[in-house]
Amino acid sequence: MSDLRNTQDPRRAYELDRAHVFHSWSAQAALDPMVITKAEGPYIWDGQGQRLLDFTSQLVYTNLGHQHPRIVAAIQEQAATLCTVAPAYANGARSEAAHLIAAHTPGDLNHVFFTNGGADANEHAIRMARLHTGRPKVLSTYRSYHGGTQLAVNVTGDPRRWPNDNGSTGTVHFFGPFLYRSAFNSSTPEEESQRALSHLEQVITLEGPSTIAAIILEAIPGTAGIMVPPPGYLTGVRELCDRFGIMFIADEVMSGFGRAGKWFAVSDEVVPDLLTFAKGVNSGYVPLGGVALSDAIYATFAERAYPGGLTYSGHALACAAAVATIRTMEDEDTVANAQRLGSAVIGPALQELASKHEWIGEVRGTGCFWALELVSDRETRSPLAPYGGSSPQMAALLKACRSEGLLPFANYNRIHIVPPLNTPDDVVREGLAMLDRALTATNS
Amino acid sequence: MSDLRNTQDPRRAYELDRAHVFHSWSAQAALDPMVITKAEGPYIWDGQGQRLLDFTSQLVYTNLGHQHPRIVAAIQEQAATLCTVAPAYANGARSEAAHLIAAHTPGDLNHVFFTNGGADANEHAIRMARLHTGRPKVLSTYRSYHGGTQLAVNVTGDPRRWPNDNGSTGTVHFFGPFLYRSAFNSSTPEEESQRALSHLEQVITLEGPSTIAAIILEAIPGTAGIMVPPPGYLTGVRELCDRFGIMFIADEVMSGFGRAGKWFAVSDEVVPDLLTFAKGVNSGYVPLGGVALSDAIYATFAERAYPGGLTYSGHALACAAAVATIRTMEDEDTVANAQRLGSAVIGPALQELASKHEWIGEVRGTGCFWALELVSDRETRSPLAPYGGSSPQMAALLKACRSEGLLPFANYNRIHIVPPLNTPDDVVREGLAMLDRALTATNS
Ligand SMILES: Cc1ncc(COP(=O)(O)O)c(C=O)c1O
Ligand SMILES: Cc1ncc(COP(=O)(O)O)c(C=O)c1O
Repeated sequence: MSDLRNTQDPRRAYELDRAHVFHSWSAQAALDPMVITKAEGPYIWDGQGQRLLDFTSQLVYTNLGHQHPRIVAAIQEQAATLCTVAPAYANGARSEAAHLIAAHTPGDLNHVFFTNGGADANEHAIRMARLHTGRPKVLSTYRSYHGGTQLAVNVTGDPRRWPNDNGSTGTVHFFGPFLYRSAFNSSTPEEESQRALSHLEQVITLEGPSTIAAIILEAIPGTAGIMVPPPGYLTGVRELCDRFGIMFIADEVMSGFGRAGKWFAVSDEVVPDLLTFAKGVNSGYVPLGGVALSDAIYATFAERAYPGGLTYSGHALACAAAVATIRTMEDEDTVANAQRLGSAVIGPALQELASKHEWIGEVRGTGCFWALELVSDRETRSPLAPYGGSSPQMAALLKACRSEGLLPFANYNRIHIVPPLNTPDDVVREGLAMLDRALTATNS
Repeated sequence: MSDLRNTQDPRRAYELDRAHVFHSWSAQAALDPMVITKAEGPYIWDGQGQRLLDFTSQLVYTNLGHQHPRIVAAIQEQAATLCTVAPAYANGARSEAAHLIAAHTPGDLNHVFFTNGGADANEHAIRMARLHTGRPKVLSTYRSYHGGTQLAVNVTGDPRRWPNDNGSTGTVHFFGPFLYRSAFNSSTPEEESQRALSHLEQVITLEGPSTIAAIILEAIPGTAGIMVPPPGYLTGVRELCDRFGIMFIADEVMSGFGRAGKWFAVSDEVVPDLLTFAKGVNSGYVPLGGVALSDAIYATFAERAYPGGLTYSGHALACAAAVATIRTMEDEDTVANAQRLGSAVIGPALQELASKHEWIGEVRGTGCFWALELVSDRETRSPLAPYGGSSPQMAALLKACRSEGLLPFANYNRIHIVPPLNTPDDVVREGLAMLDRALTATNS
């Protein structure tokens, strides 16, 4: 008899959840979680058996959709052979995953330190930068998310940092480029890029270059709003880092592995010193994250011990899932497909929605990584929900999506359209039509 | 063709490891990792096909040994059904795992916040304690390990903290009980217990009770030396915590889930406010950790949002492995077996070794959780390797074990005997005989 015999009953799942599961980022009492019993490709099924089109990729990580047969097969095969090996040993699944990842990371990011997720990847990348440079501070942008552990959440620039910030973590926040709500009164992308760079240069100068170990940036800020950086910005950051001896950490936890229509969102433009990943590396089928390091940083820890580690670094089962994911992405040309979906299907359709629905203040994105910035007034750009909060309008829109059968990713006043990268075109179109109807029903 | 086709070649595994894998806690250049290609029960096989008896349980986590058929089956079954679900939803595997864990945790630790491993479990437990009490500081012992992320490694009391400590994390270290190397000049366990408690009381008084959110303790310090606390110590800590309004966090990442011959090492004596786990919860087959919270701490976050989370909190595949592990432990009476192995097999055999080999200064442990404290001189108790380092004698002993076919866990001047909890008695005896011969060969 299966050990999982009880787990298919949605009512039991719900009741035991309420009795025993403590959920992330929430007040626990009022939670009423949807039970997910089944999922396939871009679809999930709730406890009542209703099918929903998952335009969230859960938390923007099931890049190949749910239950891709090749990843499932690799997990089952690895499980039958060897689930786990401690970090000190060498193991084929781990070696192959590192090899495949290094083959796609830009430049000389040739070595991979594996972690369990995105937060610990950023924690370790920052440690590497601090020890490599001998400097204490880390700069990051106000609109960013870098993870939930103490250092990672303090590097983060959203309200989730506030209750965790006691000013002791050596983190400093600056403004990244965001033309629609410019911190620099810019009116063109070029101006925003140039002004954001000169702002960053001033922050570096006034914080003291010799105190700054790293600048950590989401190559494209994700949860904070999918702000594709304007031309020249990332190159400019790279130049500032070079000029001041600062390490450039690209957080590609959300933007990497094809999400933005490239293997990594930084890759055409710059080579960071450290690149962190998680989520898409194995579509989240088994917890895995990591840091890819430049040869120079690797050299720092060639003779001197790196003072960091974790029990499940390079977990065999997680790495096997990564091997299957990356090979599948190569074989199925997933990254090019994500790029095409963005430019030929999602982008144009969202622009069309913007021409119909007053609430849509801006459409931003690339690949399978899109945001609608919703506003109550296009002139004032007043957000449809306050920063850090929600609103009746946003709640109504989400409810309308749900009754259309669509699950969109929502954050404050934004809707993100972040489907799996291999969602069939007609399914993407169907989902966008649901969103259209939901907007029509609520944005009256 | 399998996506894992290349991963079975040990030579390729080794070469790609050296080319691309960055290992935990190490200087990278000189590493020469053993390739593990296969594992079963208490055995692993190296790249040359040599079988080794794994008395380390890898990093003290494969509590049910390698490739237990019930855990493998549950992983395969869950993989076929639903690998992953984001934390906001409810899912049967997660609910069932939380339910089973809560059934074994002591007292009113009824809710479970899932993480990916031990470090993030401790990070979140500390955050919960800080927010629940409104106080900043955390006390922990000098001889302890609590994880590799920035806050967890600063709570840690071993030399791995040093390169990561800039004095900013609000952590304070005190001395726990350790009669063999007493910080209090005690001569009996009772004296050590009483003096360690009065030391802790002084530290609390002089640090300022109103500044201390939590005391975090390994119920039995693991990597630091398996120092089973003397009678009354844990109860005394509980009393001090109650007296001063301090949260008691029991770190059971290593000592939990049967390792110490009980479900949790604290459980007969005290109920902590927060209990962290990982490793044994699913024998490490899929990365999983977590925090079990008291009802009072849960209540703090009933109406107020808990400001922490992670993408893979309550990962379905990891939770399915936990369900199978816990049910198997219940059915196979694993915990009682661990207890019996300790008192009837391992303990007596190690005492016998101590009567033969001068190097053995002390034998400590319980269940399947034992340490040999090795000394060059029994009178002076001079350790066979310095704190934080190794020595030719330790290296020779480990080499001799390896050529006997035994893999013991080594730390500084100690050998830990931490086999899977279901290792057959004759195999345990065989391993102890190997250790005997290795000691004879080197401790001449
Ligand atoms: C850009 C970015 N970095 C880091 C993280 C943290 O990853 P994890 O939740 O796996 O710790 C996230 C998660 O959403 C992310 O989007
Ligand atoms: C007592 C204890 N706490 C925490 C940890 C950290 O766990 P992880 O390596 O999964 O982060 C360990 C790991 O050995 C441990 O032994």
